[in-house]
Order: sequence, then structure tokens, then C-alpha cells
Amino acid sequence: MKSFKFKAWLSALLVSTVFAAGTTAAWSDDAIQVPVKSIPVASTASVGLQNSIKAGPLSFWNDHPQSAQEWKAWVQHLAELTEKGLPALRAKMGVSVQASQMAGVQVFTVTPDSIAPENQRRVLLHVHGGGYVIGPGASGNAEAIMMASKGHIKVISVDYRMPPDAPYPAALDDVVAVYKELIQSTDPQRLAVFGTSTGGGLTLALALRAKAEGLPMPAALGAGTPWADMDKTGDSYFINENIDNVLVSYEGWLGDAAKLYANGRDLKDPMLSPVYGDVRGFPPTILASGTRDLFLSNTVRMHQKLREAGGVADLIVFEGLSHAQYLSSPDAYETQQYFSELNYFFNKYLAK
Amino acid sequence: MKSFKFKAWLSALLVSTVFAAGTTAAWSDDAIQVPVKSIPVASTASVGLQNSIKAGPLSFWNDHPQSAQEWKAWVQHLAELTEKGLPALRAKMGVSVQASQMAGVQVFTVTPDSIAPENQRRVLLHVHGGGYVIGPGASGNAEAIMMASKGHIKVISVDYRMPPDAPYPAALDDVVAVYKELIQSTDPQRLAVFGTSTGGGLTLALALRAKAEGLPMPAALGAGTPWADMDKTGDSYFINENIDNVLVSYEGWLGDAAKLYANGRDLKDPMLSPVYGDVRGFPPTILASGTRDLFLSNTVRMHQKLREAGGVADLIVFEGLSHAQYLSSPDAYETQQYFSELNYFFNKYLAK
Repeated sequence: MKSFKFKAWLSALLVSTVFAAGTTAAWSDDAIQVPVKSIPVASTASVGLQNSIKAGPLSFWNDHPQSAQEWKAWVQHLAELTEKGLPALRAKMGVSVQASQMAGVQVFTVTPDSIAPENQRRVLLHVHGGGYVIGPGASGNAEAIMMASKGHIKVISVDYRMPPDAPYPAALDDVVAVYKELIQSTDPQRLAVFGTSTGGGLTLALALRAKAEGLPMPAALGAGTPWADMDKTGDSYFINENIDNVLVSYEGWLGDAAKLYANGRDLKDPMLSPVYGDVRGFPPTILASGTRDLFLSNTVRMHQKLREAGGVADLIVFEGLSHAQYLSSPDAYETQQYFSELNYFFNKYLAK
Repeated sequence: MKSFKFKAWLSALLVSTVFAAGTTAAWSDDAIQVPVKSIPVASTASVGLQNSIKAGPLSFWNDHPQSAQEWKAWVQHLAELTEKGLPALRAKMGVSVQASQMAGVQVFTVTPDSIAPENQRRVLLHVHGGGYVIGPGASGNAEAIMMASKGHIKVISVDYRMPPDAPYPAALDDVVAVYKELIQSTDPQRLAVFGTSTGGGLTLALALRAKAEGLPMPAALGAGTPWADMDKTGDSYFINENIDNVLVSYEGWLGDAAKLYANGRDLKDPMLSPVYGDVRGFPPTILASGTRDLFLSNTVRMHQKLREAGGVADLIVFEGLSHAQYLSSPDAYETQQYFSELNYFFNKYLAK
């Protein structure tokens, strides 16, 4: 029985010179060298997202704008592309959107055709994603529109300032300012804050700031695949590199955006990377990610941290999905599931 | 601004001939070709598990016993290695273990030095893991010992029959038989069933059988990284191939064991692969996995299925851990966390 042998793991090192040609990984004390592999299309994800899953990496993932002017042109171009789809999305979702200001910050109030009886006095505060650079103006509204519609609840989305003009702490200051004004008129027990990616990171940072400033906490948080560690720290930054077709790699625009927002500040500062914060006293939080998500580790590390601190924290991981892909198609099963989970969770923890 | 271009994803296909040398994945309608990559040691996992994480693949992952006799020798050798560590584990954990029979099936009753007041009338039924082939006799006891000790609760572990002598449905029949006898003396509302890997799969299959036979459900289930799909279906079978250092690949002994247990039966039969079962009416279930786990998709698909069916289902994903690695060191942070989560969950849902 030739296979019946208990090789020392050191023997695996001996194959390191041939790993590129074969199917065996090479292990050392520092890293695993993983050979070339083929990942089939995730047939276990829903039919409604198969096109997004098959669609190869987002065309702009490896763009590297070199100046403030280039960043602005890049962001503006993406915003225009996104805004083209918004009238159809608003119509499909049956919402109206009003721009206004709160505490001097631009916000969008998203009102669905019908507000559920239990949500009459509730409000959700939405923080959009986009790596602290993408999603200015109405182009950051899509998640707020879908939530308002599917949850039958009023949503206020913050159009926070962003770099290159306004690096840290401008974005967080704006979210905090809107939150402070909002809790003058809305009982925080009837309020949840939510967002995806950078929106999830800012949601968590807002709660850290609320603690630091002695503000009342909102009743619940939704942190969809939050940018909880802005440094390239965490397993999935590596495992899902070149597999996640939305972010693809920290080495694309993403890592540049981190530095642009941090503006010299330590990326591990808890206000940038909330996974390093003290999360005791946080309200119930729901988190979501996907098996191909570059931010899977950001999500599960944050989840673990919240539970370790004695908090209520629910985790959902979507099979076969890349970063924030649950937002990519309003009719897809996972999109329905995401908003249905948020809705259920907020309904459970918000006062009526 | 040369990087400011929105390439069609088709252009990615053009690099497919050079991907092995570079850092870009090649995408097609069927699969992603992921280039060679380096995964650093998971510094984000606990210090207590760093040795397990660095230790390279388990030496026997790619063994392929060729006959019933070879399987038995292979299993026996692993059992002997494991059993050597048991006296020290029992002593450290402060438990006593008694072998006996229930409904004609061999079981081990694990009794901790002290039983918590709320657990006086509660019992946990444990189903060990090992791919339906590994873990006969006392060698399947480790998880039951740790749970009894850390939860201060009595645990009964089922030493179910296994192939090559006894393929499907012997293992499940044995677990069901013990469950039936146990609920004669213990209120099922004071009873949870739990296990890891194959133990998680059998736990879920037991609940399917209980439904099919009209038996009362236990009050809760613990399905640690359950073998919910015995076919090679699911994202993490591919993404974490050669990254998970416990199972490593379905192409090792694991896939052989699946066929040995199924014995010609369709691997997608819900009694083999409970992710295809009708899980409405399942009791609250807690599931656990890791970011490197070959069974991450088994776990999250099962979790999604349970929530979709309206059940209570909690998910924990351990950062940096391979399959069932949370069991590998009783003092490690993640091990404490795993049993503490199970304990909290069972305490919440079991009657006193």
C-alpha cells in the first residue's frame, strides 16, 4: 500500500521547485505557494447573478489615477455611467429621491411609494460605498433606493465629502454631522445605519465616534462587506485575489484609494480600520459577504470581534459572490435575500 | 491618463497565454484561470493555532487506499495515533468516558467533573467527523470531550458503523437508532445534536430522517463545517484547494471516502448531501467554518438554505482557519470561541 505513509510536512518543501507545473502547493513558514488553478463558474449562486459572475473583472479595477485631476475625471466618469441607470432603478423600485442638506452636508432622502405601518416613525441612514472615492452625488444612491423599496421604509443617504479634495476625516465627519442632526428629530432607537464596503466601514466608524463623543447609539447597524481593515491584512485579500471580479486585488485602484483617504494617517487607526476599535457597547449588527469576496476576512474578523465583545452580530456569506455583488442586480435571489435579511434584522431591533 | 480605459472583459482572455507568468487571471464563460499565488501565514488567526496553520498539509491527505483491507489498515493507523493523545486530553479536560451500548450501537458517555445547574437534565448527542471512514471507537471522542468539559454538560458520542464494512445507510441508521432511544428518557427539548465535518453532515441528515419518520426534533443542532454536499460542488472546493491544509483537496482520500460511503447511491441524495434536503421545520442551528476551509461553501450554502426556510441559523467563520482547525488545539482562542458559541447557543434554545 504505497500511499500509506505519513510524510513529514517538511517533505512538502522539497516540491517547491516544481509547484508551478503541478497541482501541489508548496509550504514554508511564511507562506503557501498555490499553483495555478481553475475556478469554475459558481453554478451554486443564483441564475440571476450568473452574468455578473461570468463577466470577468470590472474593467477599471487596475486603473491608477496619478493626480488629483485624474482622480476626479475617473470618479466623474464612473459616476456618469452609474447615474444613467438611476431613473430606471427609481421607477422600477417605486421610490422618489429628494436632495437636500442636513448639518451642511448634502443628503438624499429616498421615499418609497408605501411605508410599512411599523416603519412610520423609523428612518434608516445609508452610507454609500466606493472606496472613499467613488459614488459622489446621486451615483451613490442605488443601495438606498433598493432598501427603501424592499423595506418600505424612509432612507436618508449621505453624500459625504471625499478625496482628493477632502481626505480623512471629512467623510466620517459628514456622516457624524448628519447622524447628530438626525437624532434631534428621530429617536435613535428608531434608527439604523447601514452601508456596503466603504459604507460598511463608515457605519462602524460612526459607531466608534458616537461612543467616543458620548452620543446615543443607533438601534442597529448593517455592515455589508465592510472595509474593516484598510491595510492589506487578512486572509481573503490574498486567497480571493484575482478571483473576486469586482475589486480583484488590493493592488488595483483600491490600495491607492486607501492611501488617498488616509492622507498619511496610519491605516490601522480604528477610525479608518474599525476592526482595531473597541466595539463594546455596539448595537446589534448584521454583516454580509461572499465566498469570492476580497473583503470576506474584513467581514468575518469584524463579526468575530463584535461577538467576542458580547454584541449581537449576524453573519451571512453568499455562495459564489464577489465583493458587494449582492447589489448588482435588483431581481437576483441574493439581492432579495440581502435586503430581506436587513429588513428582518432592523425590524427586530428597532423600536416602532 | 493611460490607465483610464474601460477595457472589455474579453480583452482579459487575450492574456490567457501568459497568465502563469503574471498576476492577472484569465476569464472565460466556464472558469477563471487563477495564476500562481502566495498566501502568507494567517497572522490574523490566533497565536495558539499558528503551528497548525504553518504545519503544511496533513501528511495523509493524498493517500488512496485501494482495497477494503487497505482502508481498514489506514483507518486503524490513524485511530491509534489519535488514541495516544486521549488520556492526556481527558485528564486535562477533567472528564470521564464510559463505553456502553444504546439500541445495539456502541456509544461513549462523556461526563465532566462538574455539570452546570442549568444542564442537569440536558444531554448533547455528538456525532464525530472523519469523512465516514476515520474515527472509530474512542478515536472519535475528542470534540465530545472538549464540549463536555467546556460546556459542563453530559455528552453522548455515537460510535456509528462505517465503510468499507458498512456503507450508507449504516452510519445514519446508527445515529437515528441512538437518537430514538435517547428521546425515550430525555425530553428532546433538553437535547441538542452536534458534530463537525461528517459529524455535521450526519447531524443534518438525522434531522431530515427525524422529519421523515415523524420523530420530535431536538431543540438545537450544531453543524460545524458540515459535509453538506458530498459531490465536488461549491465554490470553496476549488478556491481553497491546496490552501486548506487539513483536507487539501477533494481529489485526496476525501473523494474516495465519499464514494465508499455512498456505495453507488447518488451523492446528491439529501440523506448524503443534506443541502439538497427540505429543511423546513429544522430547529435552531449553529454552523462554523473558516476562510481556508474546503467546506466553507458547504457551510454557507447550508446556512443560507436554513435561513431561506425560515429557520434560526447562526454562522461563524474563523479567520485564517482550514477545515475543522478550530478543534486542533484545546487552548487556542478559536477553540474556546467555538465551544463557547455552541454552549451559548444550546443554552439559549434548550429547555432546562
